[in-house]
Amino acid sequence: MSAIEELTTELARLPGIGRKTATRLTYFLLQQPVAAVERLARTLSDVARRVRPCSVCGNLSDTDPCGICADPRRDGAIVCVVESASDIGAIERSGEFRGRYHVLGGRLSPLDGVGPDDLRIASLQARVGNGAEIREVILATNPSMEGEVTAGYLRDVLGETGVRVTRIALGLPVGGDLEYADGVTIARALSARRDMGG
Amino acid sequence: MSAIEELTTELARLPGIGRKTATRLTYFLLQQPVAAVERLARTLSDVARRVRPCSVCGNLSDTDPCGICADPRRDGAIVCVVESASDIGAIERSGEFRGRYHVLGGRLSPLDGVGPDDLRIASLQARVGNGAEIREVILATNPSMEGEVTAGYLRDVLGETGVRVTRIALGLPVGGDLEYADGVTIARALSARRDMGG
Repeated sequence: MSAIEELTTELARLPGIGRKTATRLTYFLLQQPVAAVERLARTLSDVARRVRPCSVCGNLSDTDPCGICADPRRDGAIVCVVESASDIGAIERSGEFRGRYHVLGGRLSPLDGVGPDDLRIASLQARVGNGAEIREVILATNPSMEGEVTAGYLRDVLGETGVRVTRIALGLPVGGDLEYADGVTIARALSARRDMGG
Repeated sequence: MSAIEELTTELARLPGIGRKTATRLTYFLLQQPVAAVERLARTLSDVARRVRPCSVCGNLSDTDPCGICADPRRDGAIVCVVESASDIGAIERSGEFRGRYHVLGGRLSPLDGVGPDDLRIASLQARVGNGAEIREVILATNPSMEGEVTAGYLRDVLGETGVRVTRIALGLPVGGDLEYADGVTIARALSARRDMGG
């Protein structure tokens, strides 16, 4: 297989990129300066080698702890719980949140065999129970059925600790995906968050 | 800028890939095994460093001459002229053509200031005039206005040499782009090629 075919095959493995788009991308890259393509290659390699989950919050980062956990200007008293690291980027772009995060690594889904032990729930409990610095936990799981179930479960589990547990407002379209929501919608949903009763 | 942001920025530079798709691709890649991402990075780097235009036909290849020019089973008596190297892949996938190629590197476009001297026309004339091994030149420029003008110009220029000059049949949708046509359409257009009178 030639280098060109190899690259097209590799690119066609990416989600949402079919054979034709992969071919178009390959020929686009072939028309770029060598340095530009080398930079993309190096960035890819850097990400693969250096990015790891933050040992505190589970965010993907090339530092540990991640930039958000290490930033003294962030409010450590509020923790926003999300399903995946990519949701953090979406919330950060809204510019509405200045606390810290906790990444669950998924959502409860009995049909897929995902239970509480498969998510980073124990470490969330440890964070909340530990220094007692945390006053509020915002549950920002997706507004889907599984996301709601997960939020309900976390409310029950965290309720025992006495921490304030809030749920991000359903200004988000129900059944949607947080990762693709726009910043304004996310900002509104954050500011309209409500206490989550038992 | 973190490695993640850097990769997202790099990916968003690619054609047809916006900020959201770039973010989605980045997080997809973060979930892949390190070895898989490293392989993609290496392939990109290989392509950037090794792929060059073939000195005979202008095809992009990691060998010189390219695999098609070097293949003794290909018929050197028929040369198919295309606008860009990516068109070669499209024609090869049709499985209809067993001759060789010549890449113009564009099409005549007075409005964009592209004249005959900006295309690889002199080297085409040299190939045709030289060993006299070439019996037929198939003009497979795109079925667009500029492609037709380019084909007309090449017919006039090559007509002097006495070589048979044919035009790929307009089974292709007029105004379309050869690179995106399906193999069956390309195969039909090739087999229905007609002599191009002056």
